[in-house]
Amino acid sequence: MAKAYFDKVDNETDELFMREALKQARKAYKQGDTPIGCVIVYEGKIIARGYNRRNKDKTALAHAEILAIKKATKVIGDWRLEGCTMYVTLEPCQMCAGAIVQARVPRVVIGCMNKKAGSCGSVINLLDMKEFNHRASITKGVLEERCSKLMSDFFADLRVGAINKEQGGSHGTA
Amino acid sequence: MAKAYFDKVDNETDELFMREALKQARKAYKQGDTPIGCVIVYEGKIIARGYNRRNKDKTALAHAEILAIKKATKVIGDWRLEGCTMYVTLEPCQMCAGAIVQARVPRVVIGCMNKKAGSCGSVINLLDMKEFNHRASITKGVLEERCSKLMSDFFADLRVGAINKEQGGSHGTA
Repeated sequence: MAKAYFDKVDNETDELFMREALKQARKAYKQGDTPIGCVIVYEGKIIARGYNRRNKDKTALAHAEILAIKKATKVIGDWRLEGCTMYVTLEPCQMCAGAIVQARVPRVVIGCMNKKAGSCGSVINLLDMKEFNHRASITKGVLEERCSKLMSDFFADLRVGAINKEQGGSHGTA
Repeated sequence: MAKAYFDKVDNETDELFMREALKQARKAYKQGDTPIGCVIVYEGKIIARGYNRRNKDKTALAHAEILAIKKATKVIGDWRLEGCTMYVTLEPCQMCAGAIVQARVPRVVIGCMNKKAGSCGSVINLLDMKEFNHRASITKGVLEERCSKLMSDFFADLRVGAINKEQGGSHGTA
């Protein structure tokens, strides 16, 4: 089933779901958290959504991907997210890339890369290490400009004081 | 404050807290989850405990370290766990090592290593990468034999069918 679904994946479908991830990212922006959003898709339907709530929830565990994985596992009823695709606006950090491997997510679609701390190809690629018991396929650059602009707009707002510095932060950027 | 505390750390203190982590690991064992336990210490006191509940809770996010970090952030009231020491019976996986970096835990004390999937020195060392904005100091081999024996006992039980295979599992071992 999952295989059949993957076969149908095309750029249009990826853009459709990345737009949904962007909607999540905007929720983070509004509350003063670095705008990163994520959706998880199973058999063509969104089964989980998440957006960065690190500062809002005061925990480093509240990254968009972790929150979405948490919800998806509840829907699937298993710790293995086989057949699922994750759409995320920014390249996952080392924790989230690790969670993707642990949860056996088979495919990850990324908006823009994070050169300073990304762990799916930038600093390191935890999704493609032969030593680990799971590897995920990666599609990069889907709605890249939009995802990237949302981040730069946020940090520009932060610099001019339009966002409280204590609220917004260096999430995955240094 | 944290610095002063670190200065006082000795092997006896480390063993004391590792015994507490082992108590947590035994809770996982009893419920059929791979026996991994963790405690987080701040200013000489345990502020959070966790044990592996992956199969019990049906989520890959329920590793001992993640559950302990979640509790510790609530106690500290901040996503940064500055001044905290994590004691964990098995070398953290890539997700948990990532969470340690994200939560800025400054010191991690490890019981036994995980050659197949450990991400604090075995397969990779995510706690000591110059590219990331945080590095943690690592102390290895505290009560190593006890931590290691608990794991081998568990997998022996699993092989002879004393633990349900669907319950117990390959957590961080392949």
